Amino acid sequence: MAHILVIGAGRSADALIDYLAKAVQTYQWKMTVADVSTDLLTQKLAPYPHVKTLVFDIYNHSQATETIAKVDMVVSLLPASLHAEVAKYCLIHQKHLLTASYLSEEIKAMAKDVEEAGLIFLNEIGLDPGIDHMSAMQMIDEIKSQNGNIVSFKSYTGGLVAPEYDNNPWHYKFTWNPRNVILAGKGGTAQYIENGQYKYIPYHQLFNQTDSLEVEGLGKFETYANRDSLKYRELYGLDHIPTMLRGTLRGDGYCSAWAVLVSLGLTSDDFEVDTKGMTYRTFTEAFFPETSAQSTVDKLASFIGKSADHEIIQKIAWAGLLDDIPIPVKGSPAFILQHLLEQKWKLEDNDKDMIVMQHQFEYQLTNQTKYAKTSDLVVLGDENHTAMAKTVGLPLAIAAKLILLGKINLKGVFIPTLKEIYAPVMAELLQLGIEFKERQTQLA
Amino acid sequence: MAHILVIGAGRSADALIDYLAKAVQTYQWKMTVADVSTDLLTQKLAPYPHVKTLVFDIYNHSQATETIAKVDMVVSLLPASLHAEVAKYCLIHQKHLLTASYLSEEIKAMAKDVEEAGLIFLNEIGLDPGIDHMSAMQMIDEIKSQNGNIVSFKSYTGGLVAPEYDNNPWHYKFTWNPRNVILAGKGGTAQYIENGQYKYIPYHQLFNQTDSLEVEGLGKFETYANRDSLKYRELYGLDHIPTMLRGTLRGDGYCSAWAVLVSLGLTSDDFEVDTKGMTYRTFTEAFFPETSAQSTVDKLASFIGKSADHEIIQKIAWAGLLDDIPIPVKGSPAFILQHLLEQKWKLEDNDKDMIVMQHQFEYQLTNQTKYAKTSDLVVLGDENHTAMAKTVGLPLAIAAKLILLGKINLKGVFIPTLKEIYAPVMAELLQLGIEFKERQTQLA
Repeated sequence: MAHILVIGAGRSADALIDYLAKAVQTYQWKMTVADVSTDLLTQKLAPYPHVKTLVFDIYNHSQATETIAKVDMVVSLLPASLHAEVAKYCLIHQKHLLTASYLSEEIKAMAKDVEEAGLIFLNEIGLDPGIDHMSAMQMIDEIKSQNGNIVSFKSYTGGLVAPEYDNNPWHYKFTWNPRNVILAGKGGTAQYIENGQYKYIPYHQLFNQTDSLEVEGLGKFETYANRDSLKYRELYGLDHIPTMLRGTLRGDGYCSAWAVLVSLGLTSDDFEVDTKGMTYRTFTEAFFPETSAQSTVDKLASFIGKSADHEIIQKIAWAGLLDDIPIPVKGSPAFILQHLLEQKWKLEDNDKDMIVMQHQFEYQLTNQTKYAKTSDLVVLGDENHTAMAKTVGLPLAIAAKLILLGKINLKGVFIPTLKEIYAPVMAELLQLGIEFKERQTQLA
Repeated sequence: MAHILVIGAGRSADALIDYLAKAVQTYQWKMTVADVSTDLLTQKLAPYPHVKTLVFDIYNHSQATETIAKVDMVVSLLPASLHAEVAKYCLIHQKHLLTASYLSEEIKAMAKDVEEAGLIFLNEIGLDPGIDHMSAMQMIDEIKSQNGNIVSFKSYTGGLVAPEYDNNPWHYKFTWNPRNVILAGKGGTAQYIENGQYKYIPYHQLFNQTDSLEVEGLGKFETYANRDSLKYRELYGLDHIPTMLRGTLRGDGYCSAWAVLVSLGLTSDDFEVDTKGMTYRTFTEAFFPETSAQSTVDKLASFIGKSADHEIIQKIAWAGLLDDIPIPVKGSPAFILQHLLEQKWKLEDNDKDMIVMQHQFEYQLTNQTKYAKTSDLVVLGDENHTAMAKTVGLPLAIAAKLILLGKINLKGVFIPTLKEIYAPVMAELLQLGIEFKERQTQLA
């Protein structure tokens, strides 16, 4: 009787637990959900009395050994930095491992041992990374099967608030880790290639150099480039493609306003602000260069070279950064900004979130005809699960099931770019309503 | 018979070795100069046959123990990160220690033990830090002795090429570690206070937010703020001063051109450029945002919003960044830029360098009269020593001598902000021609 161990019962676990709890009933498997928090386990697992719970600490060596030794597969929803620790136990005790995080160098280095042990360590099988890889590879393989030569691939993903609940000028609410949103882009210079030319964008320019795109029924979005798009040429088997870009998608107008906060230095995370006696307005003023302007709004207008009633200034004012309200916390500028925006960009109890993904291909057939093909995914949160929990958790859960059923039968360390993985997972996601809509047009 | 050990015989050691070699003859002391390089020792110490040389590796524990155990004082010219290692030996074997580097947390933590052992560990006794502290404290103490209330203190230092040898449009040549010049400002957000208002400048804005100043006989310079000026309020006993700024000084026009390189991202150090088939021009183009401009010069002009013949573009063109010459190295953008500028900004064999320092005070006497006081230091390199070697090495050498003579008799960990240190050191620097020129004007 197969036994699945899910480690981590946090925000992204709901849809996964629900899916797997049903699967273990169907196939008469066993399932244990482990977390450091008793409360979380009690609350989340109440509807599933047949699923065992375990208060668990990955740093407790004897507990980790004992727990992992007696299951068949581990699904780790721990923070990305802890997966390597879990992977070591899985290798010693010969268990499969699945994560929704980027494949780390440490786990990559285990590839030969994992393969020899007849195991699979499947990483990047969530949303982004995850569904993005699978849906892209599905389209790439399909175009290649028609002998199409792909000359451009751009792919964008965003976690947003659903349109019905979008009631602020930024068109954004936190649906995921707020700190990651505040520090987005700080990971390093963005790199991509366009028409055969390398393009490099330093963090402080990232939100100025945006593209826009349309999603049918949802209208216009803004996008900014993600860290290193270049390495995906090899991963996707598009080594010589002249245009390759991966980006993040935001509501229209978000990026140009966020660019101003970055440009001022409000997302700095390298020093502590002395907030004693400081208001949000004087905090913001501390970042202005010298100017002859008098009021805070005029100084901001002068900084961005726009009129005082410009929508960027309206957004920044709405966020509270020009208010004479004392700052109640201490920390870096990024921390102060996060604390403020957690109030302003809060996803209210009844609000629903939304995932939007768009792939844009350009390719040429052997008869020289050029085509543009666009594929959109829109997933909305519902009363049971957020869109984020569905799109991160369901690929993981489906893959876990398919591996235990022997329908994915690869041995080694993988990400889901192989057809053996993406085809059955995408097929089942489609049944669950996670559906891409394709449009194709012939180019001149 | 006192025995001084100098560790490090590199670029900054010349003037120090010369001074101390003469002092040990006068006072019949002993002196050993240690370095990893036999060649360097042979070459540098040839004129001083009475000084011992030692091929030395601080990581060789038994050698370090043996060497440091038998001297009375260590002057460390090692890279700053190695001073703490030297300090441990000095504490165990009860030896005095002098360095020209910023006092580290590790050495600061030894303060009590150093004091109890009856030793002095004197740090920041070079140029910047060093002469800047001493000359500032001399003026601060003098103004305070007149019951003056200092309301503004700005201090700037720069290592430049001497005017006679200044023959490029940047008015700059490398007179010190080139990598530090390329990465200048990356240490973190610059912080200072002006008229009671905190000011924060992120790296990408640093070279845009410049001041200008004049030095008599040398004309106009540009300045940019140095990392954290705020902490000097306490160090200089000016806790409640409304304006406090420390900055770096460059030739007129340097900062506004360098700001463009920073803004483009050419000083990024976080990824490796694929330079295969790339020229300096295409490298630079990879950082441009999308533009309708055609030529590289026009794209650059569009990026900075100036005409194509603007002096900033002339400087960037002069540096070779628009040349269709293949890039012969691989590395980060900062590394590629450094490699290029090491050719362009080379201090030629006969070139001389120059140190410029300016302190600007504003203070008020009890009768309400306000004064501005400016103090300038200009030191030129000569046929024997560079200005950098003199201004870094002589304060160290003088302090070493004064400690051994018992004329500086403090016990503990110090930087030279105390009169007991700065007064005798500055007096002797003056005799050696390192002289500040003061101007005072009454303010309205």
